[in-house]
Amino acid sequence: MLYGAIEAGGTKWVCAVGDGDGHLLAREVIPTTGPEETVSAAVRFFLRHERPAAVGVGSFGPVDLNPASPTYGHITTTPKPGWAHTDVVSPLRTALGVPIGLDTDVNAAALGEWRHGEGQGVDTIAYVTVGTGIGMGAVVGGRILHGLTHPEFGHTRVPHDTGIDPFAGSCPYHGDCLEGLASGEAMRQRWGRPAEEVDDDLAWDLEARYLALAVTNLTYTLSPQRVVIGGGVTGRASLIPGVRVRVLELIAGYPGLPPLTDPDAMTRYLVEPSLGDLSGVMGAMELARGAAKGTT
Amino acid sequence: MLYGAIEAGGTKWVCAVGDGDGHLLAREVIPTTGPEETVSAAVRFFLRHERPAAVGVGSFGPVDLNPASPTYGHITTTPKPGWAHTDVVSPLRTALGVPIGLDTDVNAAALGEWRHGEGQGVDTIAYVTVGTGIGMGAVVGGRILHGLTHPEFGHTRVPHDTGIDPFAGSCPYHGDCLEGLASGEAMRQRWGRPAEEVDDDLAWDLEARYLALAVTNLTYTLSPQRVVIGGGVTGRASLIPGVRVRVLELIAGYPGLPPLTDPDAMTRYLVEPSLGDLSGVMGAMELARGAAKGTT
Repeated sequence: MLYGAIEAGGTKWVCAVGDGDGHLLAREVIPTTGPEETVSAAVRFFLRHERPAAVGVGSFGPVDLNPASPTYGHITTTPKPGWAHTDVVSPLRTALGVPIGLDTDVNAAALGEWRHGEGQGVDTIAYVTVGTGIGMGAVVGGRILHGLTHPEFGHTRVPHDTGIDPFAGSCPYHGDCLEGLASGEAMRQRWGRPAEEVDDDLAWDLEARYLALAVTNLTYTLSPQRVVIGGGVTGRASLIPGVRVRVLELIAGYPGLPPLTDPDAMTRYLVEPSLGDLSGVMGAMELARGAAKGTT
Repeated sequence: MLYGAIEAGGTKWVCAVGDGDGHLLAREVIPTTGPEETVSAAVRFFLRHERPAAVGVGSFGPVDLNPASPTYGHITTTPKPGWAHTDVVSPLRTALGVPIGLDTDVNAAALGEWRHGEGQGVDTIAYVTVGTGIGMGAVVGGRILHGLTHPEFGHTRVPHDTGIDPFAGSCPYHGDCLEGLASGEAMRQRWGRPAEEVDDDLAWDLEARYLALAVTNLTYTLSPQRVVIGGGVTGRASLIPGVRVRVLELIAGYPGLPPLTDPDAMTRYLVEPSLGDLSGVMGAMELARGAAKGTT
């Protein structure tokens, strides 16, 4: 049985076919242009391969995931030109004639890591991505966490000491929410160059502080057994070790559980994705498996 | 079939027997003194009634909920005199000879509201209690949220503007975490009298700000379909309406979902417990039902 997967991002769509057990048979990267052009390119990729049983999509957003909603499968209020109120699911289903599984990009990444990566053997895992924006997805008891909508963790508020960091924040909605302070876009605006070109220990220490506040709050709210942090901003080698140190400082021994008090346990608790940049596409493959079984 | 329930709090234990369908047949309040004395009083209560199929306990904490742990069912690191490292479950099981269901007090309250109160018909609900401390419990997909441990939401960090509120916070671990800024104990230390005696609009507006930050972060992390706020500090009539107004301000229309943008929908989203002060004991009854069926 073959499955299709799309990691539908704001700058690129990664399309793949695979066997559902973690083996990818083909993969293609399509630049994200306008909606019709991008979807057509994805359809052409799948038509070049054996017909999959279903296709899973991990999409950028916000995306309407409520199956009862008239706008299910639509990108909703994105500032991305041409994409607001765009139906992603129907054109794929119509062109390919197979069930389409859908979730957010970061929920897909959480699912991919849970099934094939760092989440194996645990019940509850959170995946935080720090790139242009900040997102979080979670698997709780083997199921992707859904409720009112998907998590919008990047828009949580964290302490912002304007004496240390006078930057007002980059979020067009909230100013200095987590994403407004710690995303790649926030780093670009604060330091005047892309995050990967920032080479100042103080800048990265500030980034580690914000991400540590985020991980601490996530730990105390969702109580995951493991937190995975990925995304383009996490490439700097010192960053994740710095976050771990600051999480331990923030938690200050409460409660006295090993991952929250012991540096070695923290190293196993707060990890980088073992699937690297394939977490999302592997999760989308898992969404396809669910769609083929009719469970999503 | 009769079930037993204990809401095991730091100042009182509420013991009850009921039919598991939301009807309490008897109830007794026992002051929390030393562990042995308190447990013995609870045992005597149950021995005065028909033997229940199981007893559920919603306990103050931190409490070890890991069934594989050698200290399962123990209160762990509480500052409450005499209670640290106290086994709550074994003495009850030994004395009563029935299965004991256990969870945190606030998880029990979330479960009670989900089954019999504000959570009926929704999949994911969070219950926040604001009393001496601040706690949160959640039901996700019909199951209490567990992971590394139970949520310790009171210890999340929220923005603290020391220009408006110079109080350093009351939490012995973290200073100005949410509980350190907004719990009943924080109000007592900041204003020099118990929360229920504070009668100053500015004080309650500050309290509404902190709780709104908490509800906003909870919404963006867990994405519950409903948030219930209870606990002794929420008795002031203006407080919850004030929190709703400030949550809408903080969310600022993102994303554009009715409960997050519309005051009427917010009034249905953020609610007081419809079981009043019985949420916890009704949830403990539900824990007993689970224990009798062997599902917890």
